[in-house]
Amino acid sequence: MNQYVFGVDVGGTNIKLGIFELPNVKLVKLTDFPTPNEHQDTAIFDAIVLNMQKVCEELGTTFDHVKGVGLAIPCPVIGGCVDICANVGLNDLNIEESMKLRLPKHMKVAVGNDASLAAFGENKELKTPYENAVFYTLGTGVGGGLIINGKLIEGKNGAASEFGHMKVFDGFEGEVCGCGKNGCLEQIAGTKGIFRLMKQYSILEKTVVDLNDLTVKRIFDAAKMGDGPALKTVNRVANVIGESAANIAMIVDPEVFIIGGGIAASGKFLLDKIIESYQKNARYKTIYTPIVLASLGNKAGAFGAAHLVKDRL
Amino acid sequence: MNQYVFGVDVGGTNIKLGIFELPNVKLVKLTDFPTPNEHQDTAIFDAIVLNMQKVCEELGTTFDHVKGVGLAIPCPVIGGCVDICANVGLNDLNIEESMKLRLPKHMKVAVGNDASLAAFGENKELKTPYENAVFYTLGTGVGGGLIINGKLIEGKNGAASEFGHMKVFDGFEGEVCGCGKNGCLEQIAGTKGIFRLMKQYSILEKTVVDLNDLTVKRIFDAAKMGDGPALKTVNRVANVIGESAANIAMIVDPEVFIIGGGIAASGKFLLDKIIESYQKNARYKTIYTPIVLASLGNKAGAFGAAHLVKDRL
Repeated sequence: MNQYVFGVDVGGTNIKLGIFELPNVKLVKLTDFPTPNEHQDTAIFDAIVLNMQKVCEELGTTFDHVKGVGLAIPCPVIGGCVDICANVGLNDLNIEESMKLRLPKHMKVAVGNDASLAAFGENKELKTPYENAVFYTLGTGVGGGLIINGKLIEGKNGAASEFGHMKVFDGFEGEVCGCGKNGCLEQIAGTKGIFRLMKQYSILEKTVVDLNDLTVKRIFDAAKMGDGPALKTVNRVANVIGESAANIAMIVDPEVFIIGGGIAASGKFLLDKIIESYQKNARYKTIYTPIVLASLGNKAGAFGAAHLVKDRL
Repeated sequence: MNQYVFGVDVGGTNIKLGIFELPNVKLVKLTDFPTPNEHQDTAIFDAIVLNMQKVCEELGTTFDHVKGVGLAIPCPVIGGCVDICANVGLNDLNIEESMKLRLPKHMKVAVGNDASLAAFGENKELKTPYENAVFYTLGTGVGGGLIINGKLIEGKNGAASEFGHMKVFDGFEGEVCGCGKNGCLEQIAGTKGIFRLMKQYSILEKTVVDLNDLTVKRIFDAAKMGDGPALKTVNRVANVIGESAANIAMIVDPEVFIIGGGIAASGKFLLDKIIESYQKNARYKTIYTPIVLASLGNKAGAFGAAHLVKDRL
């Protein structure tokens, strides 16, 4: 009989749940369902277990054949615990224990930060995983993952690879980032930051983009067509990402930078601009470090969560 | 009969050479001699071997009882090799092989970057070494060391922990840093940068410091006495170091920052200002990460080199 693990990616609006066959962590089925928006500190776990059961039934298997569950959570995670979670109501909680309580004793639970696990998943799914890699997740927020000597780095406070909160500019007057400070990469390269830049550049120059109905995709599409404010916006976003990557190279000097997340879906157009900025800013031989697009798309977190728990079996 | 390793720290003006007793890497004797300034790619190695022999004679021992030599080199080192060395004439050279050629076959050679090895030495000499630590070396240049999961991180190009070349400001117009770029931490917090700031602030405000005979110590001493331009200089230096550390925390989130190097000898005065800037800039729980002074002083590189080769025996 086949053996399985689940990989679950908890997002602010949706939860992605994948069942993976062991030993190769082969994706069998991926589903998603809305994130419960009340009593999240219990309802999220209940919903996950319910959906795990559903998936097992559909595949004609049971929890007896499930070895474990990996959870990707959108906040700093340390030792299976969350302290402050800006995106879902999981504050001051031992996630690992909360999940274990609801599952048979034989099932292992492993928990990690979603961006870190996306990095881990991307890397594990490569033919030859990198030993040292830096992964950016560009989306509503800007996160990342750091792999050193083959291991995912959490940091002392679970704050390793929080690239979105590197200070990259002087900050917007009278404003603060979600982290409580100012001048963060996320304030420019996160969705809200991109919208702000677009509106700002549109004061001085005409745009074809409807400023009352902004999406990142519309801005990037307009930029590709040469729209002035949209192009300035994308250039500024790429510039700060490239600059931040050049600084990361002076700290961990990775083999590769991998760019993932929703915004990265705009593909080579953004990537080329990031590379241009990176090469302008990179020092020494780090100028040659490749920057590539991630390939798993929004499945990366579920893959990473599955690999995490598999590695701990 | 006792067994030994040598730890050698090659600097631009002096070479420090220590002999350490195994198995505890206990320093027996530390000497230094001037760095040969001609034909450095051969003369440096010859001088090291000669001085190793001298030290052995003085201690009544021979190379038969020396297990290995560790070398700390002031440039990026990868796999025992140096590509470009800004500070001594050791370009495009396999340092490990050059040293081995001059020694009996039983002796192991290990090579690393001086700032990284200083970090490694500081850490190894602690009662309980840290598993994850960031070490700044503040001197003529600004370097550093990064220890993750107990291991010294070199990076793909030997450029890991080159903190002095993180971009921390827009750069000085019409100038470049030693690395070829502009806006580097070292351009402010390195000796040359400190002198430049001091001169700049002294245009607008009177100082007691003789601007024609600057030393870092004089500037720091004047700052302690409340001298305006000197205080502004120290504040600016501490500010950028604190800011850069806050960014490093968002990348590797270490257990501790350790500040070493010649400039760190100014002690708590600078340290307190760095901590103030760090805490103003740090995000999440990394605000509580301790920043402490190194304790081995200018012996750290030799200690680190000795520990490196000992670990490889």
